[in-house]
Amino acid sequence: MSIKPTIPKGTRDYHPEIVLKRNYIIDVIRDVFTKYGYLEIQTPSFEKRETLAGKYGNEGDRLIFNILNSGEKVRKADLKALNDNKTTEFINSISDKALRYDLTVPLARYVSQHQNEIKFPFKRFQIQNVWRADRPQKGRYQEFTQCDADVIGSDSSYLEYEMIQMYFNVFKNLGFQKIQIKVNHREILSSICRKIELNNNFNDFVTILDKLNKIGSEKVIYELKDKLGLKDKFHPLLNQIFESRNSSQALSLINEQFIDNDNSKKAYEELKNLFDLTLNNKSDVLLDLTLARGLDYYTGIIFEVVSLTNSEIGSIGGGGRYKNLTERFNANNLSGIGISFGLERVYHLMDDNKLFPEEIKSPNDILVVNFGDEFIHDISYVVSQLRTLRNVSVYPDFVKLSKQFTYADKNKYSYVLIYGKEEAQEKVIKIKNLKTGDENKHNLDDSIKNYKF
Amino acid sequence: MSIKPTIPKGTRDYHPEIVLKRNYIIDVIRDVFTKYGYLEIQTPSFEKRETLAGKYGNEGDRLIFNILNSGEKVRKADLKALNDNKTTEFINSISDKALRYDLTVPLARYVSQHQNEIKFPFKRFQIQNVWRADRPQKGRYQEFTQCDADVIGSDSSYLEYEMIQMYFNVFKNLGFQKIQIKVNHREILSSICRKIELNNNFNDFVTILDKLNKIGSEKVIYELKDKLGLKDKFHPLLNQIFESRNSSQALSLINEQFIDNDNSKKAYEELKNLFDLTLNNKSDVLLDLTLARGLDYYTGIIFEVVSLTNSEIGSIGGGGRYKNLTERFNANNLSGIGISFGLERVYHLMDDNKLFPEEIKSPNDILVVNFGDEFIHDISYVVSQLRTLRNVSVYPDFVKLSKQFTYADKNKYSYVLIYGKEEAQEKVIKIKNLKTGDENKHNLDDSIKNYKF
Repeated sequence: MSIKPTIPKGTRDYHPEIVLKRNYIIDVIRDVFTKYGYLEIQTPSFEKRETLAGKYGNEGDRLIFNILNSGEKVRKADLKALNDNKTTEFINSISDKALRYDLTVPLARYVSQHQNEIKFPFKRFQIQNVWRADRPQKGRYQEFTQCDADVIGSDSSYLEYEMIQMYFNVFKNLGFQKIQIKVNHREILSSICRKIELNNNFNDFVTILDKLNKIGSEKVIYELKDKLGLKDKFHPLLNQIFESRNSSQALSLINEQFIDNDNSKKAYEELKNLFDLTLNNKSDVLLDLTLARGLDYYTGIIFEVVSLTNSEIGSIGGGGRYKNLTERFNANNLSGIGISFGLERVYHLMDDNKLFPEEIKSPNDILVVNFGDEFIHDISYVVSQLRTLRNVSVYPDFVKLSKQFTYADKNKYSYVLIYGKEEAQEKVIKIKNLKTGDENKHNLDDSIKNYKF
Repeated sequence: MSIKPTIPKGTRDYHPEIVLKRNYIIDVIRDVFTKYGYLEIQTPSFEKRETLAGKYGNEGDRLIFNILNSGEKVRKADLKALNDNKTTEFINSISDKALRYDLTVPLARYVSQHQNEIKFPFKRFQIQNVWRADRPQKGRYQEFTQCDADVIGSDSSYLEYEMIQMYFNVFKNLGFQKIQIKVNHREILSSICRKIELNNNFNDFVTILDKLNKIGSEKVIYELKDKLGLKDKFHPLLNQIFESRNSSQALSLINEQFIDNDNSKKAYEELKNLFDLTLNNKSDVLLDLTLARGLDYYTGIIFEVVSLTNSEIGSIGGGGRYKNLTERFNANNLSGIGISFGLERVYHLMDDNKLFPEEIKSPNDILVVNFGDEFIHDISYVVSQLRTLRNVSVYPDFVKLSKQFTYADKNKYSYVLIYGKEEAQEKVIKIKNLKTGDENKHNLDDSIKNYKF
């Protein structure tokens, strides 16, 4: 019976040109992380389910891919649990591993497990795939790559500055013209929430605030009123927050309105310190009091990177500071800060804006035309020498030339190397440029260093 | 409740030094594949179960990791199948995806799915993880990396020669002194089997033959007799096979004894052609008539690479020619040839024989000692300039120097950069070599190009 060759929904094949471009981005990111003194680690694709469970909220938990226990172990399925509608218990009975959902929980597990070998502060990066059972849709996949850098075991606010530098470095090296890093602080969000007397509804407040860019300030205020009972008297203050669209305005606003306890005082100082360090009065680092992201998770400063040339694509990076990452593993006092790059979105932005260097588009360089084994054999030394400098592919079959030239053309080779009967008699090798049609002849015993391309 | 931070059995964390070494090997392999004109593709980590099922034999099928359908779909579990002991049907009811078991079946699916876009012959390589539910034991893991190069859509025997060249190139570039490539042909194994009248037991014959290196020729002959009824009169011929330990002897033996039909004649010619091309009378390519591997799969020449310096570690690479790879997807006439590198074994051999270059062992280069934000701030330009050439890590916390120096030492930094109160007054930066203790001073406005390391 024949099977239709297809892949699961939400997954992708990466064709050669895509792999080259992805590797290019990854190499740039890896290079910057390394230059800043971060070390690369890799963790297993699957973790124990107990390691991942309960870390991503109810919604996140449902998006984790569980792996069925292998062999006869599936026979231990807890049918009673299934009949009693206890889905989690049923899954527990047949699955003890799951694919990682992000790189942060594996990091927490890693530093907890190896804390006696690690010298803290631990500066690590990790570039690996993660899997989420999201409903597949345009631009959203079930398998994708995360590129994370984190420092574990330091509270220094210098790191916020370093993370921002790394963002700028990576995007500059990738050729981005104009990116903006939005900054906010979890404690300031709490303080705002207290000030407008919604502190019993912090999560709902943040969820609604997060819609600001999509629905606008008027509708946000309407929703806050409608759903959370926001009092009218706070409208002017909220409008001030929405309108404080430069960092010094926002800093003043915090100072005037939102320092109400030690935490918010400290948050203000951290933000002020960061803006002093970045020496930035321009718009490329922006204190945005409406920025709200990953709040079940971050505890301090939060970041989000957007491209100003294509702002509709949304965030191309994000991160922040978190306390007690390793708490549930009983490894105390291991807080940290991290940033992440959204490889897929960066890829699409670069593709749309033609930021990939010309030379990575096809590695197909020289195709050796096949005139039969004896001719290939004669030039095997030349070919192996050429390969020290360039990519040389020998067409494997001795078939008619038109077929081989079509192949060279369709596969976008730059040159063909010709050595057949005629060339053997003349003791020459011909190199033909497929773009210009120019042809160069070289003596068979000429050094490949003298070859003209 | 606190959870013990551990990983599933059979998986590993890769610490920074391991990642560097693995990336080094992968880069060498990728470079050689690229130089020979192979293009990299990547496929999803999971495939549809129907794509993988039935491709790896009963034993292999049981080692596939199935992924539980997500969300409420697990509720569709076929309890009747479970009660009726129909494990496969039960699994079918709750799982439609599985982690890839190798890179070959995904390749077959890939070329079948995209056959209209691909220009054949298709030279592709793929370096990705695969997963097998093998019982974890020393040196055997449930997640590991395969590095495969294949050509699909060509029968040319030139490719056998190219594959052998690529093996030598990779291992030479990795610094291996002495490797041997063993070659055999599936058709010659069949012919031997016919000759000694065991042709109804081909698979059993091969399974027993495969034990030769472990148990020796006497025991192999005993087992063939005991289990398959090998006749005594064939013992001398079998001994001749076992003793033909150089390629020209083996070729003669085939020519004299085992050409009994068109297939074995063609096989002989293919082997002869290959040995003519490799021009090799030495022992580094060896026609070994006892080599038997992957026989439910390969149909022509088969390869296996061993290290002669550490032969006990077994095969460090293997491959061969196969027909009808894409048959089950109804994509006709797509045969091919491929080789694979065993990354884990290569890694361990290189580690044991100290083949990794010194410089990849620690990327920790310069640690900037932290004397407080104001000092870090003063030298931020110098640091960013230094980073264009070297890895520079700023110690994030302003803590006592002894702690920072211990950190530099434990993390194997080569240099520390010192700029504190004293240096600020002198307007100098000090670079201290941690190995030699030597210290160099540079003016704060000196170009980093003049820095001495």
